[in-house]
Amino acid sequence: MTTDTLLNDTLAAWDRDNLLHPTTHTSNHANGTTPGRIITGGKGVYVSDRDGNQFLDAFAALYCVNVGYGRTEVADAISEQAQKLSYFHAFAGHGNEPAIKLAKMVMDRAPDHMARVYFGLSGSDANETNVKLAWHYNILRGKPEKRKIISRWRAYHGSGLVSGSMTGLAAYHARFHLPLDGFLHTHCPHYLRRPDRDMTEAQHLDFLITELEAMIMDEGPETICAFIGEPAMGTGGLMPPPDGYWARVQEVLDRHDILLIADEVVTGFGRTGSMFGSQHYGLRPDFMTIAKGLTSAYAPLSGSIISQRVFDVLMQGSEDFGALAHGWTYSAHPLGAAAGIATLDLVDNLSLLENARDNGAYLQQALKDAVGDHPNVAEVRGVGLMVAVEFMKDPAAHEWFAPMTVGPQISEAMTRLGVIARAMPEGNIVGFAPPLSITRDEIDIVAKALRAATHEVLS
Amino acid sequence: MTTDTLLNDTLAAWDRDNLLHPTTHTSNHANGTTPGRIITGGKGVYVSDRDGNQFLDAFAALYCVNVGYGRTEVADAISEQAQKLSYFHAFAGHGNEPAIKLAKMVMDRAPDHMARVYFGLSGSDANETNVKLAWHYNILRGKPEKRKIISRWRAYHGSGLVSGSMTGLAAYHARFHLPLDGFLHTHCPHYLRRPDRDMTEAQHLDFLITELEAMIMDEGPETICAFIGEPAMGTGGLMPPPDGYWARVQEVLDRHDILLIADEVVTGFGRTGSMFGSQHYGLRPDFMTIAKGLTSAYAPLSGSIISQRVFDVLMQGSEDFGALAHGWTYSAHPLGAAAGIATLDLVDNLSLLENARDNGAYLQQALKDAVGDHPNVAEVRGVGLMVAVEFMKDPAAHEWFAPMTVGPQISEAMTRLGVIARAMPEGNIVGFAPPLSITRDEIDIVAKALRAATHEVLS
Ligand SMILES: Cc1ncc(COP(=O)(O)O)c(C=O)c1O
Ligand SMILES: Cc1ncc(COP(=O)(O)O)c(C=O)c1O
Repeated sequence: MTTDTLLNDTLAAWDRDNLLHPTTHTSNHANGTTPGRIITGGKGVYVSDRDGNQFLDAFAALYCVNVGYGRTEVADAISEQAQKLSYFHAFAGHGNEPAIKLAKMVMDRAPDHMARVYFGLSGSDANETNVKLAWHYNILRGKPEKRKIISRWRAYHGSGLVSGSMTGLAAYHARFHLPLDGFLHTHCPHYLRRPDRDMTEAQHLDFLITELEAMIMDEGPETICAFIGEPAMGTGGLMPPPDGYWARVQEVLDRHDILLIADEVVTGFGRTGSMFGSQHYGLRPDFMTIAKGLTSAYAPLSGSIISQRVFDVLMQGSEDFGALAHGWTYSAHPLGAAAGIATLDLVDNLSLLENARDNGAYLQQALKDAVGDHPNVAEVRGVGLMVAVEFMKDPAAHEWFAPMTVGPQISEAMTRLGVIARAMPEGNIVGFAPPLSITRDEIDIVAKALRAATHEVLS
Repeated sequence: MTTDTLLNDTLAAWDRDNLLHPTTHTSNHANGTTPGRIITGGKGVYVSDRDGNQFLDAFAALYCVNVGYGRTEVADAISEQAQKLSYFHAFAGHGNEPAIKLAKMVMDRAPDHMARVYFGLSGSDANETNVKLAWHYNILRGKPEKRKIISRWRAYHGSGLVSGSMTGLAAYHARFHLPLDGFLHTHCPHYLRRPDRDMTEAQHLDFLITELEAMIMDEGPETICAFIGEPAMGTGGLMPPPDGYWARVQEVLDRHDILLIADEVVTGFGRTGSMFGSQHYGLRPDFMTIAKGLTSAYAPLSGSIISQRVFDVLMQGSEDFGALAHGWTYSAHPLGAAAGIATLDLVDNLSLLENARDNGAYLQQALKDAVGDHPNVAEVRGVGLMVAVEFMKDPAAHEWFAPMTVGPQISEAMTRLGVIARAMPEGNIVGFAPPLSITRDEIDIVAKALRAATHEVLS
């Protein structure tokens, strides 16, 4: 037994005995039935583990390592800032250089009507900040009863108690007392999931808008604070919205004085091929949630971008009542900010928006070529470099597989072939969202692994 | 105008125009009435700003930079990890070396009955994790109606919607729809704040325990999930608990099958002179919240330490229902973990527990010597290196100053003298919680500044 094996065993035991992992089968991990994989390094789209295995990571960890692994530009920026000043707080107007610079870079990229960015740590906490500020906004302008939040089934907005209330996946609600009161869910905007097989796409869109408006009228528009949505749904299955969806949603929201929170945690900073999904699909949000691509996960940082009209009310609020009582100790952390600056520079310098657009189209076509004609493939869909393949028992008859059967099996078979693709929850959907720097040769490897795995599982 | 001045002006303008700061007067900051201070470096207990000013930071930023500024051991650990692997996720049993090692170090230090640690980013999100898991625990063991959380007035547990509901300070509730339903507050355990001046300390303690039990009985013990408390209150005014308080609280909780969440965000890793406040005061928690001192703020990382009996139920839960649906993308982030390992090593190697104990006593005495005889000083109190001076209009007559008048003025006067001490909210309390490495010479400087500022403001 080499020292390294020994060390691996020791590490694995420490892991089992001490660490409660996120979104993991608690007992299987603790008793070693599903030993964890300890990742030790990465370069470009590849990661490697302690056992010497290498994987092409076609999901960029959790679609967040957008510039790819091992970018010394980002690591160096972090190192430099750590040596200079790892931390000082940003309360009571205090600041640090990288947070200010990054705030300017973010606002330069955000739509013109947006006014300020508040920095947090996670996508979940940024969504919570947005709800808190949206409530505050309505209270300050004398509409405290405007408080309910409408989200959508299959949405993912985080796993906290408020962010998890907005998430529209059953596992995040069951046995947690969620959703909390006042968090509602309307239909998932995905044609494959239409309630009636005979609906046309146009009828389906009408249905979605009618249902949204019916919910608003049932609850009373004077009780609805905000609508939250991912411009293109991510965790629910990487689903671009139906054509024209956002323009019609926006019209309904405007008519009823309802704020729009655009959750850009996945879509922000290039994944769709545009800087933001809001720009890609023409949303006009009052809040934009950012995280993941903001730092490519090299250091934790999230953000809440708020519109001028919301900011104006917050300013008046502080004149009337004093300082805004909202702050995490690590808001605007210098290390996250340094990572963000280096990341956004790389997005520009490596033309990652163009790459997401061009190679995203290439990826979608390659996956279609690889498995599009397989009888169990219902759909190959996506936008930019977020693409999914959805499997059904009989697509023509609209018959589904039992959830989480075929999808996870194909994902596992791909991992054995050295390619990481993610089985998305509550379905049989294999998701692809690689670093935005992925090349066509690398995409070909992904497509080949998908084809082999599909034929292995569904022979 | 030098380049540096120009750059300062530009930075200040970018700051005003782009960044929404945490816990800051929004409009005064945006219009430049209160220009921010941009911190650029630090060493030991000192920080310096862009304008060339230096300050002795007797509050360790937000009582978090426990090992002091500019520790190359921590910065180097971050740099090294950033170069090796900045990030991979920890979902589905995946892991990284530093997170596993740090988990072991944390569990080696935690009380024996604790079983696992889950890593988050902020103290707020760790408290939210604790509430989520406490609810889950009671649902899994068939007691879903056991759901309410009891906190205390003047507590600080974060500024999210759930963590802010547990915070017991008015500014965090007003105009935010907080506290949410089911979050209750019992009395602040501070003798100076006794409801009846004539109560003895023993009577006051009886009162606190009677009131807690009355609240539990009024609500129905079968509806109470958990009690959350800082072992020694921090933001509410750095108040050690009354003698015997925790033993009696613990007895009440045990009798009614109520979980205890010990919020150790401030008290964890040495500030009281013990490793944890729970050990210092003999608490037996089911959840411990950690952040701040865990990494000395060099990188964001928090944690939820859970007891064996809670963990046993979570294990059974995953056997019955599958993976635990709780995870932040940045849970167990490698950079935070690397910072944590280096920080906890420094806590040992620099004997910071001993220093907190010895120099904490020295600090308390030095502040007493400096202002203890001033007619407006009601109390100099604390434990370890968390010490406060509370001012009253007439301590003998138990007459208070209007909140946030004298306290902030003294804090500002101290800043002008080059020493940072924090005016704690909703009172006239000047707080001291320096890096745990502070020396007696440095403490003498702090005491001298407090004396001068007190005499300047209250001459
Ligand atoms: C759209 C969206 N919003 C929010 C989140 C939550 O972010 P975090 O995991 O950083 O809390 C995610 C995470 O996957 C996400 O995909
Ligand atoms: C006792 C306590 N708990 C929780 C928190 C919240 O931590 P964070 O600001 O990292 O969210 C704080 C912050 O000061 C705290 O003092």
